[in-house]
Formats: sequence, structure tokens, C-alpha cells
Amino acid sequence: METGKMRVNGARLRASLEEMAKIGATPAGGVHRLALSDEDKRARDLFVKWLKEIDFTVTVDEMGNIFGRRPGRDDTLAPVMCGSHVDSQPKGGRFDGILGVMGALETMRTIHENKVQTERPLVIVDWTNEEGSRFAPAMVSSGVWAGALERDWAYSRTDINGRKQGDELERIGYKGAAPAKKWTTHAYYEYHIEQGPTLERLGKTIGAPKGILCLHWYDVYLQGEANQVGPTPMEGRHDALCAAAEMILATNTLPERMKGNMVATVGEIQNGPNSRNIIPDKVHFTVDIRSWDDDHALRAWELLKKDFQEIAARRGTPIRIEETWRVPHAPFNDRLVQRVLDTAKELGYSTHHMVSGAGHDASYMNQVCPTAMIFVPSIGGRSHVEVENTKWEDCEAGANVLLHCIMKTANER
Amino acid sequence: METGKMRVNGARLRASLEEMAKIGATPAGGVHRLALSDEDKRARDLFVKWLKEIDFTVTVDEMGNIFGRRPGRDDTLAPVMCGSHVDSQPKGGRFDGILGVMGALETMRTIHENKVQTERPLVIVDWTNEEGSRFAPAMVSSGVWAGALERDWAYSRTDINGRKQGDELERIGYKGAAPAKKWTTHAYYEYHIEQGPTLERLGKTIGAPKGILCLHWYDVYLQGEANQVGPTPMEGRHDALCAAAEMILATNTLPERMKGNMVATVGEIQNGPNSRNIIPDKVHFTVDIRSWDDDHALRAWELLKKDFQEIAARRGTPIRIEETWRVPHAPFNDRLVQRVLDTAKELGYSTHHMVSGAGHDASYMNQVCPTAMIFVPSIGGRSHVEVENTKWEDCEAGANVLLHCIMKTANER
Repeated sequence: METGKMRVNGARLRASLEEMAKIGATPAGGVHRLALSDEDKRARDLFVKWLKEIDFTVTVDEMGNIFGRRPGRDDTLAPVMCGSHVDSQPKGGRFDGILGVMGALETMRTIHENKVQTERPLVIVDWTNEEGSRFAPAMVSSGVWAGALERDWAYSRTDINGRKQGDELERIGYKGAAPAKKWTTHAYYEYHIEQGPTLERLGKTIGAPKGILCLHWYDVYLQGEANQVGPTPMEGRHDALCAAAEMILATNTLPERMKGNMVATVGEIQNGPNSRNIIPDKVHFTVDIRSWDDDHALRAWELLKKDFQEIAARRGTPIRIEETWRVPHAPFNDRLVQRVLDTAKELGYSTHHMVSGAGHDASYMNQVCPTAMIFVPSIGGRSHVEVENTKWEDCEAGANVLLHCIMKTANER
Repeated sequence: METGKMRVNGARLRASLEEMAKIGATPAGGVHRLALSDEDKRARDLFVKWLKEIDFTVTVDEMGNIFGRRPGRDDTLAPVMCGSHVDSQPKGGRFDGILGVMGALETMRTIHENKVQTERPLVIVDWTNEEGSRFAPAMVSSGVWAGALERDWAYSRTDINGRKQGDELERIGYKGAAPAKKWTTHAYYEYHIEQGPTLERLGKTIGAPKGILCLHWYDVYLQGEANQVGPTPMEGRHDALCAAAEMILATNTLPERMKGNMVATVGEIQNGPNSRNIIPDKVHFTVDIRSWDDDHALRAWELLKKDFQEIAARRGTPIRIEETWRVPHAPFNDRLVQRVLDTAKELGYSTHHMVSGAGHDASYMNQVCPTAMIFVPSIGGRSHVEVENTKWEDCEAGANVLLHCIMKTANER
């Protein structure tokens, strides 16, 4: 077959996705497959088995990243990589992450069965703990591999039960021998659901993000004064939850006050002592700010921090702020992004040039080599929830775009 | 000694309180002695031992209420009762509840060592689970005893680990044989810390509440739409935590909007999925409204409920409201309240006629017999916290007032 006419097998891709969706399946149709859980192990085992069926050489590194490699005609050339992650959010969906791994596997199966020989080696990867919901932060193992994060620090991160990431890697048998250390890479493609409503609203099939928004995380701690609610007059109270409520609303209106071009969210809150007849005296909450423009996001934070300090002073609830994590916006490689758009058009799919609001392992890979992503629509824009969904025909379309991007890029000298 | 000149032994009262404060002592100087915990059992055992030392007959009823009885000259007359509770809030203080039990014990020790013979029998009581923080609701066992609550329903209430109140009563050996059923009682006095700032602010030693505020509890549930925060534009979000934040602030300003005469508090909140990069879609919070005027509290709730419904509709976060618990305001017996004020003045203490914002077992006892309470100042108005404190001289003063109120009342035919 002329390689330009090659297409992935949509039915096989669907079958693989459905098989994976059984691992950690929830009654409401989602997936609960936390990083380094028994479910994660089962998904990994299955992925490795499938890699071996198409004669890929499997390597596991010390962060548990799984690499499958297929030699190039000139095996000394830097490889073309693609992949994503098999772990999920708590009660997450059947597409986030796993579509990028199964989509890449499907392209490799197609290349394998068509006996295509690419110039460069091909590498498919499952990155450990992309979600960061069991062990924070997210994207930790691509971060270590890329040299942006420390391995031993990553090992020491604990889950809610105090278990260490390093120990859990060992427990499920995926603490490999290979160093988690980047090698020279020619290009990286990551195929993923959009996780937002834009493609569906515009009626487009393939999204090519020009990059990933910056991601700034903050942790806010408020100290109030606990008291029995009945005998304590309203005047003179120092209610930490009321202060937090004002701050949550200030965060919610921040993008509007900054005239757009960003999102800001409070997703998590802990209230203490959290008893219905005691005035709250200990509140912790998180702030998540994202923008294409890092400076814009920082200016927004300065404004919000002033709001917080004013509210805390007025309510007499001392405030402590941690600037927890900052990832700059990641502009992808123009040439590769254009290749995604061109390839999709050649295949007859409608396209949209956009940004990615969510972080991905591609953020760290972008520091290592030319990187691009391929998005397909999320139904209703829903993600990180059990009803997360994408049409099977869109799953197939994205995999075809990935297939042809990989073949073109892997034949470049 | 002429009985009018009798005084309690302040040093002995202090020693008993300090002994009790060791049971469940926290590093920060408070007490953690949850209802029906091992600590509660140890406090009960000590209380029973002390009762037997002064020849009181001890009875435990099927709710674990502990009664100590001293015969009257005419033992067929209805007794005078006094007491409070030995359980504490989680990380609570060294005075809430236990002062009323140890103060009553000190009056009984004083009566005993002075060989005073009262006309009526005297009964001292420790009510099981006044706090309601391990098993909701509060004041459950005085409620059952008074006939206001059902025993088997109380047994079935579970703690956060799913343990049943009835099973825990049995486990610590305090499920007694006597029915938890009221008997004819001549009067009930409960001695307690104020738990608010009023006495201290006014520089008064003894407070005599004319009664207890009404207590209305509500539970609010909000449904939002969870989504990955990065790719989801601000427009069109249905953020349940933002809706809750507006409602918390509406609750906080409610007393002012109602022109005072009430308090309103959100003490407890649960947020789901509570992940920093997911828009919250499930929030539960509580509302506590108290007033001397039940109708005023109900009108306030009607206003607040309208606010809630408007906010929920505007933010597209469907709301469900449970009207969980309503205890009407409890006006105490005028004659007994006056006796507290008169007795305090006779003993040379300054007094204040006030209301009680907190609920007490006296609320249910007030449905059984003439009831009054004796308050002493809380330093800084702090209560339900580890720094809860009351001066030893004030503890002694309140016990002296209790002593003479009991003697007067117990000699009435």
C-alpha cells in the first residue's frame, strides 16, 4: 500500500479503549485508575503485553515510565516519540490520557502490520502519574525525565495515606532499572481529548494547540477565632470561612476584572474545625490561575493577593500564602503544529488552531524537543468526570492524524 | 454551722476540675473527651467513685445518664436535680460541661460534710453526649429522658466511623438497666460557663439566663458541573463552591439585614470532588440560626432561603435544602431565675440577667420541671476551643450560688 493511503483500524482502537476502560471501571461509566494503584498496574501490564505483540522493545525507567521502541532504518538517529498516560483522575473518564496511549499504539500497530520501515526509530511512552491527584504534583515523571524535577523528591511525595510514590512504584513492580533521563529526541507528539468545549462549539474535528497555558498554583491559609456560635455576637467575630468565601468570589471575578485572557479557580477547600456550631478558625484553599500570557497571570495574582490581604485585614483573619507551583506557558514547535493542521486537512478533517488550557506531559517534552499535540472534541466539553466522552469516529480521526504526522516526521533526516 | 454561712471548698473544686482535665488532655491545654470514648468512660468511672465516697446512690439508665441520689428528710418528695455533662467537643476546653458536674459535686460534698439534711432528695446528673459532635444531635440523652426524643433512634445514630451510639454505650459499660424516663422533679439547676463574652465585658461574676435561644439547623446541598479548570472558560461554568461562597456571605449578613436580635453561622462545609484543578460540583454546608424570638428566626430563614434560591438559579447550581432540626426558645422558670439572681447578690457577687445562646441539657429539663442556669464568665468569651478558660475564683463563686439555690429549693415543701 502507498503509505499516504494508510489508515488506522478504528474498530481495533475502540476495542483497545474499551478493554482499558474495564480496568478501574466505575458504575457511572467512568474510570478510577489512580497512579500506581493496582488498577494502574493492570493497565500497564496490558499495555506492555500489547507492545510485545508488535515486537516493540520495552524499557521501564526508575520513574516507572514505560517506553516501547521500534528501530529505524538508521537506528542511530534520534527517535520520534509519542504517547500520554494510562492513570486517571479519581472517578475520571475513559479517554483522558488513555486515548493518547491507545491512539499511539494503534498507529504503531498500523505501521507494524503494513511493514513500514521509518528512517528514524519510533518510541511510544506511558508517563507515570500525569494526573497528580494521588501524588502531587501532576506530570511528575515526564518532569523528572526531562530534567525539570528531581527523582528523589518525586519518590518522597506521599498520598493521603502517607504512602510514598517511590515505594508504590516498587510495590506494583514498575520501578525500572533504566535512568529517568532524557535522550536526544527528534520530535514528540501527544494525542489527547480537548477537555474543553471549543472544538464541539465550532464543529471542528481536529484541534492543534499552539501551546499550553501557564499554570500557577497557590495555597492560602486563614486563621480565624473559633467560638461556640450561639453565645458569640456577630460583631467581633473572626470567621475564617466568611473570609474565604469573599476570597473565592474575588478569584471567580478576577478574569473579568483582568479583561479576560485567563481563567482562575478555587477547586479545593478545607475548613476547621468544621463543626456546625463552632465558628471556623482554620481554612485552607487553593487558587489555580492559567493564561497564555505569563505576565498577565502574574499581574492578575498581584491584584488578587491585594484583595486577599485587604479581606484578611478587615475580617481579622491572618493570612498565609504559599506560591506552590508555576509552570510557564509552553509554546509548541510552530513547524510541528503546522504539520498537524496540514496533515488533518490532507486527511479531510476540519481543523482549529487553539490553545490548551490543561497541562500535559507535552509541557515538559516541549523543553526537550520539538513538540505538538493533537486534540479531538470532548462531548459537552466535560472532562475529569465519569461522563467524559468522545465520539469513536473522532478517536479514529485523531489517530489517523497522529499516524501521518509520525510517518512524515520519522522519515526526516 | 448556720447553713447560710456555708461555702463550698474552692480548692477542692479546683483539684477535681484539674483531675478531670487530665482525662483526654491535649498538648495545647484543652480536653478531647468525646461522648462514649475511652476517655469519657474514665471520667465517668471517676465521677461514680467520687459519688460513692459521699454515700450517694448511683443509678445508670439505658442512655448512660449517671444519677447520684441523696435521700431527703421526706424521701417521697420530688427531688431537686442539678448537673451537666462530662463529654467534650473535639479539642474542646477544660470547663464546658465538666464545671457543671464538678460544681454540683462540690455542693454535694459541702452539704455532705456539713451533715445538712434537706427536706427533698437531691439528685446530681451527668447527661450522656451533650455535645453531639461525635453522634449528632446534641443533648440527646436528656432529650430521651425528658420524653422529647426516641431511645432507639438515639441508639441508631452513628459516628464518622459508622459506630452506633447504642453499641458504644455497651462497649464502655454504661448502658444501664434503668429506663431513661423522666420522673417528677421539683427543680433543675445547671451550672455552666457562659461561652460568650458578655459577663466579662460587663465585669459581672454571675449570669442568670432568662432562657435559651431557639436553635434552627439547616443543611444545604448544591449541584454544580465538574470540569477540568484549564480548558473550561469562565462563561458557562456552574461552580457549586462559588454559589456556596455567596450563600455563606448572605448568611453572615443576615442578622444585620434582620436588624439584629439573632445570630447566623455556616460552621461546616464539604466540597466535592475537592481537587484543585476540577470545578467543584458537589457542596454541602450547614446553617445555624438562633434567636430569642422563634418567629424572627423563621422570618430570617425565609429571607435567606429566597437569597439561596436566587443565587442557585443565577449560577445554574440546583439546590436542595433540609430543615434538619428546630428547638424552640426555652424560657426558664421566672421564680428560679430570680432565685439565682437574689442568691448571688446575698453572697456578694455582681449579677447579670441575660440569655443563653448555647443549647444545654437544661433546654430539655425545662420541659420537665422548673429550670434555671447559673453562668460564670468565659475569659475572652472563648469556648469549644482548647484555650477555653474561667478564673478559679469565678468557678468557686458559681458553685456557692448553686449550693444556696439548691438548699433553698430543696427545703421547699
